[in-house]
Amino acid sequence: MAETLTDYRLAREIDLKAFVAAALLEVGVAKPDAEIVAEVLVAADLRGIESHGVARLESYYVGRIKNGLLEPTPRVTTVIETPTSLVVDGGNGLGHPTAKRTMEAIMAKAKTSGAAFGGVRNSNHYGIAGYYAMLALDHGLIGVASTNSVRYGAPTYGRDMLLGTNPLAFAVPAKNEPAFVLDFATTTVPRGKLDVYGRKEKNLNPGWAIDEHGVETIDPNVALKGALLPLGGLGIDSGGHKGFGLGLLVDIFCGVLTGGKFGSDLPLLSDGPKPGGISHWFAAFRIDGFRDLERFKADMDTELRAFKDSAKAPGHDRIYVAGEIEHEKTEFNRKNGVPIHVKVWDGLEKMAGTLGIPFAIERT
Amino acid sequence: MAETLTDYRLAREIDLKAFVAAALLEVGVAKPDAEIVAEVLVAADLRGIESHGVARLESYYVGRIKNGLLEPTPRVTTVIETPTSLVVDGGNGLGHPTAKRTMEAIMAKAKTSGAAFGGVRNSNHYGIAGYYAMLALDHGLIGVASTNSVRYGAPTYGRDMLLGTNPLAFAVPAKNEPAFVLDFATTTVPRGKLDVYGRKEKNLNPGWAIDEHGVETIDPNVALKGALLPLGGLGIDSGGHKGFGLGLLVDIFCGVLTGGKFGSDLPLLSDGPKPGGISHWFAAFRIDGFRDLERFKADMDTELRAFKDSAKAPGHDRIYVAGEIEHEKTEFNRKNGVPIHVKVWDGLEKMAGTLGIPFAIERT
Repeated sequence: MAETLTDYRLAREIDLKAFVAAALLEVGVAKPDAEIVAEVLVAADLRGIESHGVARLESYYVGRIKNGLLEPTPRVTTVIETPTSLVVDGGNGLGHPTAKRTMEAIMAKAKTSGAAFGGVRNSNHYGIAGYYAMLALDHGLIGVASTNSVRYGAPTYGRDMLLGTNPLAFAVPAKNEPAFVLDFATTTVPRGKLDVYGRKEKNLNPGWAIDEHGVETIDPNVALKGALLPLGGLGIDSGGHKGFGLGLLVDIFCGVLTGGKFGSDLPLLSDGPKPGGISHWFAAFRIDGFRDLERFKADMDTELRAFKDSAKAPGHDRIYVAGEIEHEKTEFNRKNGVPIHVKVWDGLEKMAGTLGIPFAIERT
Repeated sequence: MAETLTDYRLAREIDLKAFVAAALLEVGVAKPDAEIVAEVLVAADLRGIESHGVARLESYYVGRIKNGLLEPTPRVTTVIETPTSLVVDGGNGLGHPTAKRTMEAIMAKAKTSGAAFGGVRNSNHYGIAGYYAMLALDHGLIGVASTNSVRYGAPTYGRDMLLGTNPLAFAVPAKNEPAFVLDFATTTVPRGKLDVYGRKEKNLNPGWAIDEHGVETIDPNVALKGALLPLGGLGIDSGGHKGFGLGLLVDIFCGVLTGGKFGSDLPLLSDGPKPGGISHWFAAFRIDGFRDLERFKADMDTELRAFKDSAKAPGHDRIYVAGEIEHEKTEFNRKNGVPIHVKVWDGLEKMAGTLGIPFAIERT
């Protein structure tokens, strides 16, 4: 990346959250809901996942509410509930509040019953999947979260955009080591990466994307008219069918299982957002259903350290396990301020003006 | 592959199973256990996954029992049991019988409670993970199975072999379409692929393996002294860290969670098998905890067809969803006979002589 720290301003976490909540309140979102969205978006910025943070506040959330595409005060209903399952209809509301409450309900069921699964249908973009999986960490549970999304990716041997970036997230606690938090898109790269490479006139890597005819391309501008490839890349030789399988699994778990939209009924970027087009899926289970929690956590430290302390490849002095970089960024950003790109900062300030709310984000 | 059908003989399924069971009986395995191993190994050959079929009967199972590395009549014990969990100690026995019985017990718990998880520690190689996930298909359940394995793979930015091929398998039923069965190693390729390319003096693809210093190599003979790369390949640009994360997740679920061996305590190929070094992990949950089973299955047909009927990339006339090729091979091989490579066939015949049992496999 050619971007430097001078492209960023450091915001006070508390101010940033308050601003996000205020903007959402202004377009009619209830305060408890707005606060959850603020928490999830700022969590992404803290973790260094800018693409899923406050940068999306206007285009994904405030703008869609203003355009009538997303219900600010949705009618959220329970579709089915058992001691080990829960499916909620999100009423075409913001993804974050309903996702958080549903995961919390599933966790409560898992605490009582040992294991539980569930999902939300008729919802919208919910930020980072990892946030919901991580809710389980302090409760002696292993958490799993997933969501389907706008379609960007093609199946192996295909060329139609049929798959979202469909992330899967798993969170497993450790004792002294940071928790293991695996949160990944099942496409090789996110679509935003094509935009970035296009702006920089850089070639893509092979295995990232195809053109509109289904032929692999390294030209970002051609790729933007084509489709993303699944994790593993083109064809089956390097495992593209595995990434395709994982992406389809996510669409089955989120869309088909909850009775939500799936497959070719999911939104395409070119169509614009499809109200309630997104579904989420969650699972949680008790670690002490397997073994003593404290001994498990101690062994998790041993496991994670075995990888981190193992021999490094030339040119590398650290091996990171899943979630470690994001954990370190969060600790750093909590202390020093949340880095917000100047363009995003200016966008938030402009949005404040349009909404007629104060822009009171202090720089640290 | 340069191999042709003339390199294969077609065996009667019933004979092949009877032979596998007879060989195991001869080295002291109880009949019900031997029959389960036979079923799982032949299921792999039927599905076209030769590497996990009867080809391994001598080296992985019969030979290890004869060498005292694997208990023919293990003391299998319950470590922990709750209404939604079960952990079993496999007593260093054959993986297949204990894995099958444990998955069946977990499925029974899931039927009663809605969801259940569990595992087996102190076990050995159990064949294809997909077999155990697929047990769920006729019970209105979604099945998940996994196992850790001998170490072949390096973490992202590392060079030590710390990860097995650590497969993950998911089975989801459909109505008229074949079930969705995703069963994949979390390394880019299995180690056997390096052997095959070495014999054929073919270059590997980039992203498959590194040399002993941690540098990517396309020389199969160099790679055989190095390590496999995780799904996604070298480094993080094409998602190698995602495959690494999945492989580590499998080791956590199988090894750490069950109280079994994990990380650097897992066997290395060069050490030879480590008794009881392998652990398995399973999950099952009720589809009707989410929605009506029959409507779900009908929607699964729609979902799978959407992918299969979508536009094809140049040079391809079919898009296969996970499990479809294996389903078609099983149907074909059930009718026409199970293809067994002549070298494997001859090996079985030789083993029959050594064990002093009849070799009565009819060719179809």
